[in-house]
Amino acid sequence: MTPTAIANHVEANNLQADPETKKKFNLFVGASVGPEVEDRWARMDMYVFQLELPRYGLVGNVKTNLFLERIERRYPHQVGKDISKGINAGRINFADKHLSMFPQDLTYGYYNLHKKHGDPRKPLDWAIVEATAITEEGHIVPGASVGATPEILQSAEKIIIEVNTRIPNLEGLHDITQSFVPPYRQPYLITHPSDRIGTTAIPIDTERVVAIIESDQPDNTGENAPENEDSRAIAHHLIEFLSSEVDAGRLPKSLLPLQSGIGNVANSIIGGLADGPFDKVQVWTEVLQDTFIRFFDSGKLDFATATSIRFSPNGFDHFYANWAKYKDRLLLRSQQVANSPEIIRRLGIIAMNTPLEVDIYAHANSTCALGSRMLNGLGGSADFLRNAKLSIMHTPSSRPTKSDPTGISCIVPFASHVDQTEHDLDVVVTEQGLADLRGLSPRERAPIIIQKCAHPDYRDSLMEYYERALDECLRKGAGHEPHILKNAFKFHTHFQEHGTMKIKNWD
Amino acid sequence: MTPTAIANHVEANNLQADPETKKKFNLFVGASVGPEVEDRWARMDMYVFQLELPRYGLVGNVKTNLFLERIERRYPHQVGKDISKGINAGRINFADKHLSMFPQDLTYGYYNLHKKHGDPRKPLDWAIVEATAITEEGHIVPGASVGATPEILQSAEKIIIEVNTRIPNLEGLHDITQSFVPPYRQPYLITHPSDRIGTTAIPIDTERVVAIIESDQPDNTGENAPENEDSRAIAHHLIEFLSSEVDAGRLPKSLLPLQSGIGNVANSIIGGLADGPFDKVQVWTEVLQDTFIRFFDSGKLDFATATSIRFSPNGFDHFYANWAKYKDRLLLRSQQVANSPEIIRRLGIIAMNTPLEVDIYAHANSTCALGSRMLNGLGGSADFLRNAKLSIMHTPSSRPTKSDPTGISCIVPFASHVDQTEHDLDVVVTEQGLADLRGLSPRERAPIIIQKCAHPDYRDSLMEYYERALDECLRKGAGHEPHILKNAFKFHTHFQEHGTMKIKNWD
Repeated sequence: MTPTAIANHVEANNLQADPETKKKFNLFVGASVGPEVEDRWARMDMYVFQLELPRYGLVGNVKTNLFLERIERRYPHQVGKDISKGINAGRINFADKHLSMFPQDLTYGYYNLHKKHGDPRKPLDWAIVEATAITEEGHIVPGASVGATPEILQSAEKIIIEVNTRIPNLEGLHDITQSFVPPYRQPYLITHPSDRIGTTAIPIDTERVVAIIESDQPDNTGENAPENEDSRAIAHHLIEFLSSEVDAGRLPKSLLPLQSGIGNVANSIIGGLADGPFDKVQVWTEVLQDTFIRFFDSGKLDFATATSIRFSPNGFDHFYANWAKYKDRLLLRSQQVANSPEIIRRLGIIAMNTPLEVDIYAHANSTCALGSRMLNGLGGSADFLRNAKLSIMHTPSSRPTKSDPTGISCIVPFASHVDQTEHDLDVVVTEQGLADLRGLSPRERAPIIIQKCAHPDYRDSLMEYYERALDECLRKGAGHEPHILKNAFKFHTHFQEHGTMKIKNWD
Repeated sequence: MTPTAIANHVEANNLQADPETKKKFNLFVGASVGPEVEDRWARMDMYVFQLELPRYGLVGNVKTNLFLERIERRYPHQVGKDISKGINAGRINFADKHLSMFPQDLTYGYYNLHKKHGDPRKPLDWAIVEATAITEEGHIVPGASVGATPEILQSAEKIIIEVNTRIPNLEGLHDITQSFVPPYRQPYLITHPSDRIGTTAIPIDTERVVAIIESDQPDNTGENAPENEDSRAIAHHLIEFLSSEVDAGRLPKSLLPLQSGIGNVANSIIGGLADGPFDKVQVWTEVLQDTFIRFFDSGKLDFATATSIRFSPNGFDHFYANWAKYKDRLLLRSQQVANSPEIIRRLGIIAMNTPLEVDIYAHANSTCALGSRMLNGLGGSADFLRNAKLSIMHTPSSRPTKSDPTGISCIVPFASHVDQTEHDLDVVVTEQGLADLRGLSPRERAPIIIQKCAHPDYRDSLMEYYERALDECLRKGAGHEPHILKNAFKFHTHFQEHGTMKIKNWD
């Protein structure tokens, strides 16, 4: 509500053109505040940071160099068009950072290196935070997300609390830990998704609270992405693979805790697990969507923990109405903990995420179309894929363009932007099939990725690239990971010129 | 000694040509066994895995698909030419993996997915391991490195112990932890480099020991890379930067634990610290070289822990002769612990490594020249750079080619292979200067990297690439990380054709 009120005030008083006012309003935005508000702020260049997970996440910083931290990889449909336009048009500076690292870098002072005013120990001027209750001690019980809220509150000189009276008091849903800086950090003593290591509310210095506002706005969420034939085929390959890992004794029968991204493939996978062969499944993930309600109700999901819940409006209604049924099987944590490499590696998480494209050696692009245009940001994909026991990327093998229903191949010779390296991925899966890359060298990986995962329209072309590169590089004694650099981006440049990646030849 | 004896036997009996014998000898090699032995094994295609850190690391696996795990990023001069030749000529399959992950992937069974014989719970047929003593219980006291030895011993059906009687009994130097697989993993309860969480010897199942051999071979190490003007300039920039971080209150006066790579720049940095303004410094790193003796003796280094010691022959003589003086200030751990993201992040390590090249947005190539030719492997660079509090890459701004003393620019438009992403690096430094990238967006990073770090011979050319890309991408509304893909590798392809990266123009 506060962001909307500020946007109204700025527009009504025509303040957006005044450079002095603009500076004053370089405040914040929590991305899931809803596209309308986000876009209004974006049009007025009112951004500094943008955080995903706290609905009214954050926070201001009166730096004259605008820059914006977007961490909203997994809600493309929530991102207002004007925001990505602002980023890609050069108006908004956007620094993409691992979800686990943004809060710590904030407390390190890395985002106020050049701040000239105020308390240097408080990187942010303002925090606006949503609460579903305030405890007797003045501590904050968050809503359906925690995200970076503890570190944001810790880092802000002034705090505005927005108490949402439409949402029930969610006290008990959260496990809140504070952030210490080295050399004072301690281990996270978590060995099971249900382990609690913190408090149920966020302690704050109440002297810094400058306003408490009542709000009755619902969560401004949309519907989930619908499943389709491809997403079901991918889910089928994946569940078959997980079953075979259980059979081989490399996974327990209840699997290991799952991390699942967002989108129709993720929904198909979770849906498939609800009907699947695995019992007492645990989830350790970033965001819970509607399909998790089905997963809970199937009796197969034992416990889930995340940093945020993002149900559809109907999903939230169902969730709040059945609160007693879910509350002991669910825990929300800060994103620094939910995405912690320490815990992800210890628990041996099975991580599943969608890239824009994967190359023939298993480098993946999670963020930038054609190397340059930011889509949704990195989110926590690399936190999970680097540290999981099984690191899985799933994608349709091709995507449509205006002129060609398979004009974009999601398997390319060379990823036009690398967010996940070949050293991080174990499995790549498309509707075509699944490539198990564990223990393989680059020369072993390429033919398998091409044959199992590429769309048939691109398979021959990719194999020809690989074989030519192999031949040329072996002759030069440079064949560890064969490439012909002058042709490495030919799929992409051909797409830029002709609207399809279907090249005529490699000459 | 054993590897040499096996190589002798194979050569003397002309067994290397026999496909059946070749299979039998797909054993092992510890990289620091010395280039001569490594090369002989390589010429005979006797490799399966190659591990860096245990001097006689490991280990056999009679897979018919050869593949080799090289983790020796930091000893380029130790790598026998025949090995890299074998990899780049396509004879040896080499799978590069984060140093922290190789041992766990071994215990997960990811390297024997296709093994058809023997005990499936023992991925390796043979382990050959060096000991400086065997305890009464039959446990193994390692030599000057631990590496993956605990997991290798845990994973092998048969064990050969080579007791080195030339080296003193190093009992007490090691902190040995065993590897458990999820869901049975526990936190590493380490909050200071000197913390001990394990035992002083490696427990083994003595029934699997098939031979104990005496050896009196010295460590086959070479001399350290000599410092030069460039390496001293880089060290100077870095120490100045660290001092300013202390002044700003973002680092304690004793710094935070240091990780330092290997090579002349690393030696200059450690040398600079020995003469520098910081007291009671801690080190948490992979490998200790001779300069650390000087650092200890300067009184400025309080405690150092690593997974391996790799002094020169003179350095080792000095170290063993003064054992009493050093032994309480030094601890060796397994590489899974030394490179653990959990501990690196908790301690807030300052990580410093050398890349082959860095691009204008701070993606870095640590492994593959011109995208294809493997040089030294990834090692633990990404374990440290992803998780450190300060992630620093240092490199000379250019390197010589046959025809041009600055024919290779280490700052390029687009890294021809990406091992470290833009999301991981905080600082890039060359002899030209230091670029502090914290909190900056890609469009802010590029001009700073070019102006501060690039060699003057390439600065204008790089700025022209960036400005053209910016202009073109902004016009298309795709300007988050501006690239012109058709020109992105022009430095590299020009080098392939003309022996220098100095292009004539960008058209």
